[in-house]
Amino acid sequence: MATVHLLRDDELSPQAQAVFADIRATRQTDFVNNFWRALAHDPAALKRTWESIKAIMGPGALDPKVKEMIYIAVSVAHGCPYCVHSHTASARAKGMSETEYQELLAIVGMASETNRLVTGLGVPIDDAYEVG
Amino acid sequence: MATVHLLRDDELSPQAQAVFADIRATRQTDFVNNFWRALAHDPAALKRTWESIKAIMGPGALDPKVKEMIYIAVSVAHGCPYCVHSHTASARAKGMSETEYQELLAIVGMASETNRLVTGLGVPIDDAYEVG
Amino acid sequence: MATVHLLRDDELSPQAQAVFADIRATRQTDFVNNFWRALAHDPAALKRTWESIKAIMGPGALDPKVKEMIYIAVSVAHGCPYCVHSHTASARAKGMSETEYQELLAIVGMASETNRLVTGLGVPIDDAYEVG
Amino acid sequence: MATVHLLRDDELSPQAQAVFADIRATRQTDFVNNFWRALAHDPAALKRTWESIKAIMGPGALDPKVKEMIYIAVSVAHGCPYCVHSHTASARAKGMSETEYQELLAIVGMASETNRLVTGLGVPIDDAYEVG
Amino acid sequence: MATVHLLRDDELSPQAQAVFADIRATRQTDFVNNFWRALAHDPAALKRTWESIKAIMGPGALDPKVKEMIYIAVSVAHGCPYCVHSHTASARAKGMSETEYQELLAIVGMASETNRLVTGLGVPIDDAYEVG
Amino acid sequence: MATVHLLRDDELSPQAQAVFADIRATRQTDFVNNFWRALAHDPAALKRTWESIKAIMGPGALDPKVKEMIYIAVSVAHGCPYCVHSHTASARAKGMSETEYQELLAIVGMASETNRLVTGLGVPIDDAYEVG
Repeated sequence: MATVHLLRDDELSPQAQAVFADIRATRQTDFVNNFWRALAHDPAALKRTWESIKAIMGPGALDPKVKEMIYIAVSVAHGCPYCVHSHTASARAKGMSETEYQELLAIVGMASETNRLVTGLGVPIDDAYEVG
Repeated sequence: MATVHLLRDDELSPQAQAVFADIRATRQTDFVNNFWRALAHDPAALKRTWESIKAIMGPGALDPKVKEMIYIAVSVAHGCPYCVHSHTASARAKGMSETEYQELLAIVGMASETNRLVTGLGVPIDDAYEVG
Repeated sequence: MATVHLLRDDELSPQAQAVFADIRATRQTDFVNNFWRALAHDPAALKRTWESIKAIMGPGALDPKVKEMIYIAVSVAHGCPYCVHSHTASARAKGMSETEYQELLAIVGMASETNRLVTGLGVPIDDAYEVG
Repeated sequence: MATVHLLRDDELSPQAQAVFADIRATRQTDFVNNFWRALAHDPAALKRTWESIKAIMGPGALDPKVKEMIYIAVSVAHGCPYCVHSHTASARAKGMSETEYQELLAIVGMASETNRLVTGLGVPIDDAYEVG
Repeated sequence: MATVHLLRDDELSPQAQAVFADIRATRQTDFVNNFWRALAHDPAALKRTWESIKAIMGPGALDPKVKEMIYIAVSVAHGCPYCVHSHTASARAKGMSETEYQELLAIVGMASETNRLVTGLGVPIDDAYEVG
Repeated sequence: MATVHLLRDDELSPQAQAVFADIRATRQTDFVNNFWRALAHDPAALKRTWESIKAIMGPGALDPKVKEMIYIAVSVAHGCPYCVHSHTASARAKGMSETEYQELLAIVGMASETNRLVTGLGVPIDDAYEVG
């Protein structure tokens, strides 16, 4: 159901080939998922997106597994089935247990419920929560 | 900007008073934020929501701070300013550093960007991501 | 916090004046809320929007109060504070009780929670739910 | 396209079996839809979600059919195809006519349109709509 | 995966037939896409929706191709795969190049990212941006 | 209503100062809006975000004014008031007329309405719209 053709390896521009090579090296697998094959029509966007993801999802203050779980939470809230599937796979590869996934979903569901209650009730922000 | 009156302590029904007492005991503070004061018109909803939050956000496989960060991610994705303010306060109280908050927002932003690219490109789910 | 000037009665074009007159006659009040004052810069959009609302929210198979409650549900899900405020006022004017509003919000919250669980779990549509 | 395995009856834990039995008794049908089969990996979440739904969607101030229609409205606004399919089936089982469904969708569409106009115009909340 | 039967030409009411005839005449093609076949159960909604689309997407200050691209942007943000598919087809028919589509998606992605950063940071509106 | 302190010029790190200097030079104004002041706590995110925006919103296949209008469309759909305010200001500075803004909002509203109708009707993608 793509709106663009998914590029095979032999259809990539040299710039896209270089990005694919870095994806493979970074992830240590030959598998390159469909997202990158759809994005590869625009090598500049491909490169910019991959480099941002690599920087943001790489080593930092938060645990890599936790980062993937936050990614999933956003993807669920946005209703993006592809994103949920690809990032649950990534999170599991980084050690997310089934119990942790169930807890993640429970939090996402709970937050969704209270978000809507807050909006419906028009709750004003407490003074205690304001930051300069 | 509420759509309902925010109940003061002296306006609570006995059932709502009992929930407020449990909120105060659980959180070890006298402060009860506006969300609960707006919800208290419906004591059954107040009790159900509080008990679900207490169960879901309490001890489990995930770290309490991580749980709050997932809550924030969903609240940002839903565009709920009150929820973002109250849960950043909670997350900070549970130890979230400013660096961690910046990383969290970077992931939320990145996920939002790629979620939209995926949807626009109509990327089909890779077979590798399917679970029975 | 408008992005356009809110038009006063003495600033309206003749076409906009005619729509305002119909709003006042239909609602039997002199009060015209800010939404129409912001939209009145584009008299064609003003007329088209008002006539669609009048047709859709007018007499039909569903009770007028129920129609307003469905409107609120959507406005909450979209995170539109103005819309929630104006349509809770309308719903109350059409007889929505505070208990009914609390029930409405409980359903909206519940639906939000399960919607997210469904998306996170990637639940496939049961054959029993398919319509030709 | 699930992200978790859908549990068959013979794979359920005893706690999940008890919830399934209550779903069947309450709904007076042997059919248990995929949502519950995906959620059953976490019996506590299964029980909490089912009991909340049973309480919220059961007898109250609003008509059961109206409750399902509000549920549909939220599910449409969230872009959850599974939720729309399962709750249109429920609403039809509770008496929603095709004309009522068309009216519901017309309201959801209208609310979506005006919600976006309001946000784009940045319409400030009228004083008349504020509640203490 | 429809929730209603998609009407064939020989199943249309006379009012729906008239709208279909206008769609075909306006677009100069015999092809009528599934959206209209699903909506045709409610001839009044069919007529109102088609006439609004024809007015809004027809000649005006903005280029027809640009109008379709704005339509796509909204459809991506809402997570509506059908809408993305039908309007990318329309935009291409009106001259959108693949480079323009990639740029459109880059903007949509970028806007999504900064929208979430803004919400997470709770950025207050600068005085300079206020309109009376 | 910020969740972080908005940094004044004299509070910026050297890296953030460099980005602010580039924002001022690129936009040819001394005014730096609140978004950048909130983001400046994380100089790496500040730099990455500014450079992506500069690349994406700069010269390309699409007109700069059109790019801003697409940005607005997404911001409206996401319910981000700050984003709508800042990008309507940008679009006006790049030549967007009030008539064009009204047309933009009409398209956003119309797309929102039909997006929801499509989701509610569960319209399947026509074969004609599929791309390899």
